[in-house]
Amino acid sequence: MVIVRDVFLGVTRFEDLQARNGIARNVLATRLDALVAHGVLERRVYDEGRDRADYVLTAKGRALWPVLVALRQWGDEWILGEGAEPLVVEHRGHRLHASLTCDECGERVTRSDVRVRRGPGYDPARLPAAAAEG
Amino acid sequence: MVIVRDVFLGVTRFEDLQARNGIARNVLATRLDALVAHGVLERRVYDEGRDRADYVLTAKGRALWPVLVALRQWGDEWILGEGAEPLVVEHRGHRLHASLTCDECGERVTRSDVRVRRGPGYDPARLPAAAAEG
Repeated sequence: MVIVRDVFLGVTRFEDLQARNGIARNVLATRLDALVAHGVLERRVYDEGRDRADYVLTAKGRALWPVLVALRQWGDEWILGEGAEPLVVEHRGHRLHASLTCDECGERVTRSDVRVRRGPGYDPARLPAAAAEG
Repeated sequence: MVIVRDVFLGVTRFEDLQARNGIARNVLATRLDALVAHGVLERRVYDEGRDRADYVLTAKGRALWPVLVALRQWGDEWILGEGAEPLVVEHRGHRLHASLTCDECGERVTRSDVRVRRGPGYDPARLPAAAAEG
């Protein structure tokens, strides 16, 4: 998730991703390969001679954007606190505070308004009894 | 994140979390301790004699709910596909499809409408030049 966040921020090259996160090269390589294998990133070679590539987001990867916005907002609020954010997200000129709203009825989604029921792929061996109600 | 999701679904005991995820007991114990240390979960002993406890979400943990909703939605759409979801989230009777909207202007938030700028906690050593613009 940290790698995907960096790619969203415009860090797309192996060397830059490595420098930024200070993780071992082999660990980063394994994670990037996994993200490519899962279709979240695409590897685009820009220097064939030296086998250098950019990692760019696929449509599947770009679709993670709301997850990252929600996660950043949570981190800013509950971990860093106002005044300590390394980056500030602005929406059309104002500071962004975003909420989930329902596409169908337009209302803000809260936990007390939703109900979780079994879906077509429900597997009792993998899901808790508590989630299986209904 | 998987543990937090399970606690949201009502799985709150060590044995149940372990059975559900099939991870080693010591790994689960370490992760639960970390989540308690970070204030995401609280350990509530219900049987002192046997040192058995429930893990419940703190306010900080409950605030992760939108992140998990966004992540589940992404997984349903991009990994499992319609018709394979183990669980379905319903909002007031209809299937939930949620979007991020801006609390200030009420508009749906898209990546092209936001701008990321340096915040008060900006540290050039930890953030990429691309994110430092402005």
